[in-house]
Amino acid sequence: MDLDPADQQLALELDRAHVFHSWSAQASLKPMVIAGGLGSTVWDFEGTEYLDFSSQLVNTNIGHQHPAVVAAIKEQADVLTTVAPAAANLTRGKAAQRILEKAGSRYSKVFFTNGGADANENAIRMARLYTGRDKVLSTYRSYHGNTGAAVVATGDWRRVPNEYSRGHAHFFGPFAYRSDFWSTSPEEESARALQHLERVIVSEGAASIAAILLETVPGTAGVLVPPPGYLEGVRALADRHGIVLIFDEVMAGFGRTGSWFAFQALTAEDGSFVEPDLITFAKGVNSGYVPAGGVIISPAIAEIFDEAVFPGGLTYSGHPLAMAAIVGAIDAMESEGIIENAAHIGRDILGPGLAALAAKYDVIGEVRGLGVFWALDLVSDADARTPLSAAGIAALKGKLLSLGLLPFTADNRLHVVPPCVVTDAEAERALAIYDQAFAELPDLA
Amino acid sequence: MDLDPADQQLALELDRAHVFHSWSAQASLKPMVIAGGLGSTVWDFEGTEYLDFSSQLVNTNIGHQHPAVVAAIKEQADVLTTVAPAAANLTRGKAAQRILEKAGSRYSKVFFTNGGADANENAIRMARLYTGRDKVLSTYRSYHGNTGAAVVATGDWRRVPNEYSRGHAHFFGPFAYRSDFWSTSPEEESARALQHLERVIVSEGAASIAAILLETVPGTAGVLVPPPGYLEGVRALADRHGIVLIFDEVMAGFGRTGSWFAFQALTAEDGSFVEPDLITFAKGVNSGYVPAGGVIISPAIAEIFDEAVFPGGLTYSGHPLAMAAIVGAIDAMESEGIIENAAHIGRDILGPGLAALAAKYDVIGEVRGLGVFWALDLVSDADARTPLSAAGIAALKGKLLSLGLLPFTADNRLHVVPPCVVTDAEAERALAIYDQAFAELPDLA
Ligand SMILES: Cc1ncc(COP(=O)(O)O)c(C=O)c1O
Ligand SMILES: Cc1ncc(COP(=O)(O)O)c(C=O)c1O
Repeated sequence: MDLDPADQQLALELDRAHVFHSWSAQASLKPMVIAGGLGSTVWDFEGTEYLDFSSQLVNTNIGHQHPAVVAAIKEQADVLTTVAPAAANLTRGKAAQRILEKAGSRYSKVFFTNGGADANENAIRMARLYTGRDKVLSTYRSYHGNTGAAVVATGDWRRVPNEYSRGHAHFFGPFAYRSDFWSTSPEEESARALQHLERVIVSEGAASIAAILLETVPGTAGVLVPPPGYLEGVRALADRHGIVLIFDEVMAGFGRTGSWFAFQALTAEDGSFVEPDLITFAKGVNSGYVPAGGVIISPAIAEIFDEAVFPGGLTYSGHPLAMAAIVGAIDAMESEGIIENAAHIGRDILGPGLAALAAKYDVIGEVRGLGVFWALDLVSDADARTPLSAAGIAALKGKLLSLGLLPFTADNRLHVVPPCVVTDAEAERALAIYDQAFAELPDLA
Repeated sequence: MDLDPADQQLALELDRAHVFHSWSAQASLKPMVIAGGLGSTVWDFEGTEYLDFSSQLVNTNIGHQHPAVVAAIKEQADVLTTVAPAAANLTRGKAAQRILEKAGSRYSKVFFTNGGADANENAIRMARLYTGRDKVLSTYRSYHGNTGAAVVATGDWRRVPNEYSRGHAHFFGPFAYRSDFWSTSPEEESARALQHLERVIVSEGAASIAAILLETVPGTAGVLVPPPGYLEGVRALADRHGIVLIFDEVMAGFGRTGSWFAFQALTAEDGSFVEPDLITFAKGVNSGYVPAGGVIISPAIAEIFDEAVFPGGLTYSGHPLAMAAIVGAIDAMESEGIIENAAHIGRDILGPGLAALAAKYDVIGEVRGLGVFWALDLVSDADARTPLSAAGIAALKGKLLSLGLLPFTADNRLHVVPPCVVTDAEAERALAIYDQAFAELPDLA
């Protein structure tokens, strides 16, 4: 690819002049320019390269510019870029088929959306209509998307089945390192978190709760791998009270944990795992090459909409280009062993490598994760577990960028989230860069 | 393109087996298969062609498979398909620049989303934070998208600035043919609708209202072109009470009315027109070739987020492929005179042609519209204006399909919404098909 260094300045100027950015104050932004990428590497117009250990927003699971996915998009672009959701479209059917194959036999249908937020919207809608209840329980340490008003602003009939009065309640999930339950072990954390959840269910009124919505492994909140027994316990509580269990696999799904879905990676000793009633997905399903997300639906829930109208929809549900990218990505992940690679990288390289760094540097309070989904919980005081300051994180981030690594940081954490295609050599190189960065930042207070 | 007739059955089978459809009961669906398209025509795998007078969901303003837009997508696909919103991206800057050029000098920034629902979500968010108020007023005859829960389910800090208690109130907009105000002329309808809106504002409490959200020309509700003076009056009420005025141009924008934006088409006698504080868009901006939408922001609102964090965002904000399709579509619409064509088709062909049909068939109660944005309000009793039955509409729809035209129907209406690139000959052919369909359906009760 030909890069014109003059485009570096142009990209920055147009951005600062015209583009409004998410989740930020606009005046002080100094965005990095990204001109292109391949695999685990991105570059700017001046040719400076970075090892992408952010996967952008933890979505390029298949890496940048995977040729099979790019080819699938271009092929579909030549045939039919867009079609209304009401029409039947072959590529859409193939995408749904592949997703269901990976999710397992407990699920029968897929509803497609544009991303993660609207996937959760529609899962919540299904749960409310299935149960005839309206409250949704979710954890404080979670992110499920940024939407909350359009259907209530809508005036026509589509608003009426979507107006909920009581709404949402939040609870604390398990997080042994920073326990909200004064626990002293993962087992105790799990048991106490379940007891707390049961207290919330009873206090909110079990008969008013439509859904428990959980990130299988809470991602942006810190890669909080649930302790043994927790998901089993939640499943039991949901069953006991007739509550729909939704796992948000937007960030955790499609390879990030070294399995197709995170819930499949979190096995008990006998190899069994907990299956939810609805699964939401986005990001990794096609690595964000074309915006897409969706809900994977179990038959009991799908069937109530055989005769009843499902009151949800969007113009680009099952968009052909997005579907082509899903088919291309899933097929390539399968045939190239990309899921297995993610598991291997976590088990053999990042897991031990990050543990070694934690042993070496006091600032690393805890290492958590699996597959290519890791977080370093950084602390200024290891005993008190005092979160590292924003200034400390900013300094670390600057250092990593200067060493040629694009990091993902959140609060006091460094998330280690490369594409699932990351090679052994790249993972080793990243570990060396992290090592150097921690070594050269003596005063991370 | 090579079509394999065997794929017709496969597309249907995969769809019925795996794909969950929006806004419908699933059991009885018999979706039409669409395999490909070009301009104003689509076809299935058996080679049967249809004149697409639906523009799918009124989104393919530039027609199917416009070569310049397909080329722009493929070119971007070779360079960089996806990038995080926080990075600066050249194609995104160019897309924002073009959109602002068309919107006019009153606007300074663009926030990008995946579609129309999340465009409205973020416009509402901006209005609430700008005013420090939370209520949103919108009309009963409106559709603004299907989202309403994800951010309230979110547990982390991003929920807190987005929880609104009082929420939404609805009012009646002007619609002279089916007046909610007992009016007898468009002028009276306009005046009474404004008096009604003022009563609602006062009754809801002006100081609690963040935004009035209006489709500039309500679309799915029936192409309800506002009567003279109405938008001016709403603008004056908004100004008087410090309320943000949002025009939803998701369906009406980017050529549909024969102007870049509908508000620019609705000029007073002196050529002036009403400008809102925020404009939401999607669909026509890139004809849905890649999912995209957004908010066009005036400086007063953009500037409050110079120092304050804007608490909204989504993974695919400003997605490169979507942006490439925007640049390709706007440039082609400009250089090929596609907006002017839409105006011409409305003025010279569909306007007079549909009026002639209305004069011929009692079932057509009213013809409304402009550009390539028309609705026929169908009635079983012309004097009582009794809406045509669902069975009547279904029969008409079946008839039109059998004559080779893909129609758009909503409630008791036939919407006439071809792409902006529709030719004179295609528009004439459609008029002849509508004529034949009405003629051959003697008993549309
Ligand atoms: C777990 C989870 N759910 C939902 C979302 C929202 O997805 P989107 O940004 O595509 O709306 C995200 C985004 O980061 C996420 O991490
Ligand atoms: C006026 C209007 N606003 C918003 C929307 C929602 O857009 P989307 O379906 O892309 O979410 C639509 C969709 O038809 C619309 O017509």
